[in-house]
Amino acid sequence: MRIVAALGGNALLERGESAESQIQEGHVAAAAAALAPLAARHQLIITHGNGPQVGLLALESAADPDLAHPYPLDVLGAQTQGMIGYWLLQALQNELPSSLIACLVSRTLVRADDPAFRGPAKFVGPGYDEATARKVSAGHGWQLRKDGDRWRRVVPSPDPAELLDLPLISQLAAGGVIVICGGGGGVPVTRDETGRLSGADAVVDKDLTAALLATQVGADVLLLLTDVDAVQEGFGTAAAKPLRQVTAADLRMRSFPAGSMGPKVEAACRFVQATGHRAAIGRLTAAAALLDGSAGTLIVH
Amino acid sequence: MRIVAALGGNALLERGESAESQIQEGHVAAAAAALAPLAARHQLIITHGNGPQVGLLALESAADPDLAHPYPLDVLGAQTQGMIGYWLLQALQNELPSSLIACLVSRTLVRADDPAFRGPAKFVGPGYDEATARKVSAGHGWQLRKDGDRWRRVVPSPDPAELLDLPLISQLAAGGVIVICGGGGGVPVTRDETGRLSGADAVVDKDLTAALLATQVGADVLLLLTDVDAVQEGFGTAAAKPLRQVTAADLRMRSFPAGSMGPKVEAACRFVQATGHRAAIGRLTAAAALLDGSAGTLIVH
Repeated sequence: MRIVAALGGNALLERGESAESQIQEGHVAAAAAALAPLAARHQLIITHGNGPQVGLLALESAADPDLAHPYPLDVLGAQTQGMIGYWLLQALQNELPSSLIACLVSRTLVRADDPAFRGPAKFVGPGYDEATARKVSAGHGWQLRKDGDRWRRVVPSPDPAELLDLPLISQLAAGGVIVICGGGGGVPVTRDETGRLSGADAVVDKDLTAALLATQVGADVLLLLTDVDAVQEGFGTAAAKPLRQVTAADLRMRSFPAGSMGPKVEAACRFVQATGHRAAIGRLTAAAALLDGSAGTLIVH
Repeated sequence: MRIVAALGGNALLERGESAESQIQEGHVAAAAAALAPLAARHQLIITHGNGPQVGLLALESAADPDLAHPYPLDVLGAQTQGMIGYWLLQALQNELPSSLIACLVSRTLVRADDPAFRGPAKFVGPGYDEATARKVSAGHGWQLRKDGDRWRRVVPSPDPAELLDLPLISQLAAGGVIVICGGGGGVPVTRDETGRLSGADAVVDKDLTAALLATQVGADVLLLLTDVDAVQEGFGTAAAKPLRQVTAADLRMRSFPAGSMGPKVEAACRFVQATGHRAAIGRLTAAAALLDGSAGTLIVH
């Protein structure tokens, strides 16, 4: 069986937690322990988020006195692919010493005319109180919006149109290699009319990239792994309860928060409706249980 | 023919030049233009330095008010692999649109008891005047030393002992894929007596990693590409002149500056003496001429 597993950036760095390297490595080790049993029995392709991490590097780059221009998000996203990818590679290798594991720097083509470039909507980086948010916005020329009770930076998040490194990913997975790729949704690039590729100052949603990846590599299942147990029916109400199994069509009728569960639901629906295969959303540490349907929310056609 | 080409970090960011992303992307584009003709005709494996870049990220991490502990050099090195690897991948793909190119996050095993951990000697990051150097040293607890007429941070640079991702690199190269790997000498990791891998707060010399890589993948030639035309006979004297061809044994009798040409000479000698094949040292933009012997310094057995 071929599995695409997407790890939430928040599962690697919890909300409000300090971004210390050691703390993140600890979370990655737990993720690797949860994924290793799947990798031992199936073809596994892993992608991961980078929201908190790319936000931190963006702040560092913006504060660097030696730089006239902070690095754009494609470059910072590539940095997070290296960093998080290395942590995952190392932790998985410690779980599976004899497995071949490839961690690929990989790019996602987006359309230069994607409307997302005119309406930044994806949260990155830490949350601020309102006064600090005003200062951060004025200081860096960034847009900030409310995410729950905190303010966070928002950046353009264009739709993933094509995975430029797909042939390699498929070839490696078919050869039995565990592949880590598409980190942070892939480094966003655009292609001009001459075919030339350029980086884009944006962040691609990693769940939507995972859905495209799962569809195009012919995955049997897409696992969207996060820090909650399941999708909630009646989310935000007193009567909220976990959805155990639902069709993509049914799920599309409901509404979910744009910043967190929304993209996972959209990704699951895209994959299930494109392929007829199943997707599951749930807690990272329960990855194996999600696969056999004993935990999380299963999304079927 | 199989070629390993090592690009100097200084060829991607010249001494004293600002580390703006656009400037580095421009240098990478020039590097890709120089390498593309080789990649079109031969199996090409590319590695690159990261001295200036890892130094910049280390400064940013040390200055980050949200971090109690700056990120260690393995993590920062992995970030530079993502960043520089992405630039190379993108620029090479623009030169060779139909080629498969793999950019791998990759690790280099070093010995935990390597004496380099007790004697930091590898320069990273920007140069300072003496007064600034004292402040930087006191502020971050870093060791600094004189590099020419400036002061720079020095970090441990243990010898590369094993390339942990070698089987993948060989497999990809044999399949006709252009491989970018071992950036910054590879992310340094140590292995304990139980076999467990951990990151090391160090930087591996990328030329020595390139020599090990070239030896172990069975390269026919090792190209050490930098920002000077050739190895100089009588370096630093009025009578200095370029060495056109030299045996490894002869080259080992001469002395070279530890920070720049020294590791290239050592790397070339190691590869040539281990394999009997040839190495060349010279200007990045003359890569094709280095290969046919019409430029640079050729090192033979």
